[in-house]
Amino acid sequence: MESAPAIQRLLDELERMPGIGPKSAQRIAYWMLNSDRETVLRLAEAIVEVKETVHFCSRCFNYAEDELCEICSSAKRDASAICVVSEPRDIAAIERTAVFFGTYHVLGGALSPMDGIGPDDLHIAELMQRLASGEVKEVLIATNPNVEGETTAAYLARLIKPLGVEVTRLASGLPVGGDLEFADEITLGRAIESRRVL
Amino acid sequence: MESAPAIQRLLDELERMPGIGPKSAQRIAYWMLNSDRETVLRLAEAIVEVKETVHFCSRCFNYAEDELCEICSSAKRDASAICVVSEPRDIAAIERTAVFFGTYHVLGGALSPMDGIGPDDLHIAELMQRLASGEVKEVLIATNPNVEGETTAAYLARLIKPLGVEVTRLASGLPVGGDLEFADEITLGRAIESRRVL
Repeated sequence: MESAPAIQRLLDELERMPGIGPKSAQRIAYWMLNSDRETVLRLAEAIVEVKETVHFCSRCFNYAEDELCEICSSAKRDASAICVVSEPRDIAAIERTAVFFGTYHVLGGALSPMDGIGPDDLHIAELMQRLASGEVKEVLIATNPNVEGETTAAYLARLIKPLGVEVTRLASGLPVGGDLEFADEITLGRAIESRRVL
Repeated sequence: MESAPAIQRLLDELERMPGIGPKSAQRIAYWMLNSDRETVLRLAEAIVEVKETVHFCSRCFNYAEDELCEICSSAKRDASAICVVSEPRDIAAIERTAVFFGTYHVLGGALSPMDGIGPDDLHIAELMQRLASGEVKEVLIATNPNVEGETTAAYLARLIKPLGVEVTRLASGLPVGGDLEFADEITLGRAIESRRVL
């Protein structure tokens, strides 16, 4: 395809984005060519701005524009509860539920001996430092319900419990609206083990 | 979701792109946050560059960085054949076939009385001007095989034939690799009407 070099460069860069193949890149490139200048430049500016201004919160390692993230610096959040997650994107998922009002701590991954990721590669020391103040009453471990996430949860529980802080874990069970028939046996097994009295 | 304002702005702008919903926008935004600065800024620059440098070719209305597009300014292209298309993106599709070596002319749409698009809204006068030189021997009309595209093709054929220029049209028929059973009756009817002698 003999397209203008600038268009080819744009297509190459667009295709680096996750989930964007050659067809989507072309669709987006033509949209950019046909859209008014202002709309497109606003997107470019938003991209630059995010890279210039967003870094990690010095307390919880969430994304932040200031020294502390929006949640750590909010007076409305309950500092006596910390929800531990693997990645900043997990915070967004939990915030959408609107049922947790404490603060967060991002580990930056999960323990994985296979990939050579040990406790020193995660923000665990910083979490222990936060617990040292004695202000925290509960640590809710919200790592993923997979091998690495469960390993990390077990490791953290062993580390934190001796401090007299309550350690909790997200419940496993059937997804709401899900179908019992299609649940995998591990999930269904967990749902039975964790059955509630009605 | 309490995300940093810069991230929210980026999400809003990303969602304007075609085919990008909230989930894809979030996936792309996190990719941008996690990728190295250089990769992401290169994308932003490619976007700005395309809007700053790309405009329409003064001869054929394809996208171009200079006065003429890459195809119009190439000495290798056969100036005696013009392929007429609706949009610049159609040129990319035809170039990928690598079977047409002439030049192009972009109409900028197709005739559509329903949408109030008449001949004066398309680059038809400019096409007639190109034909006036007498250099052009064939005009291949490659508008879409739909109502607007066929109307445009018929209109152009009536206009161009009196000049003694050969007017051709893309063949309609079964898609290669397609299944006769699943062809719609109009396509199959066209394929029968346009049957070739073997």
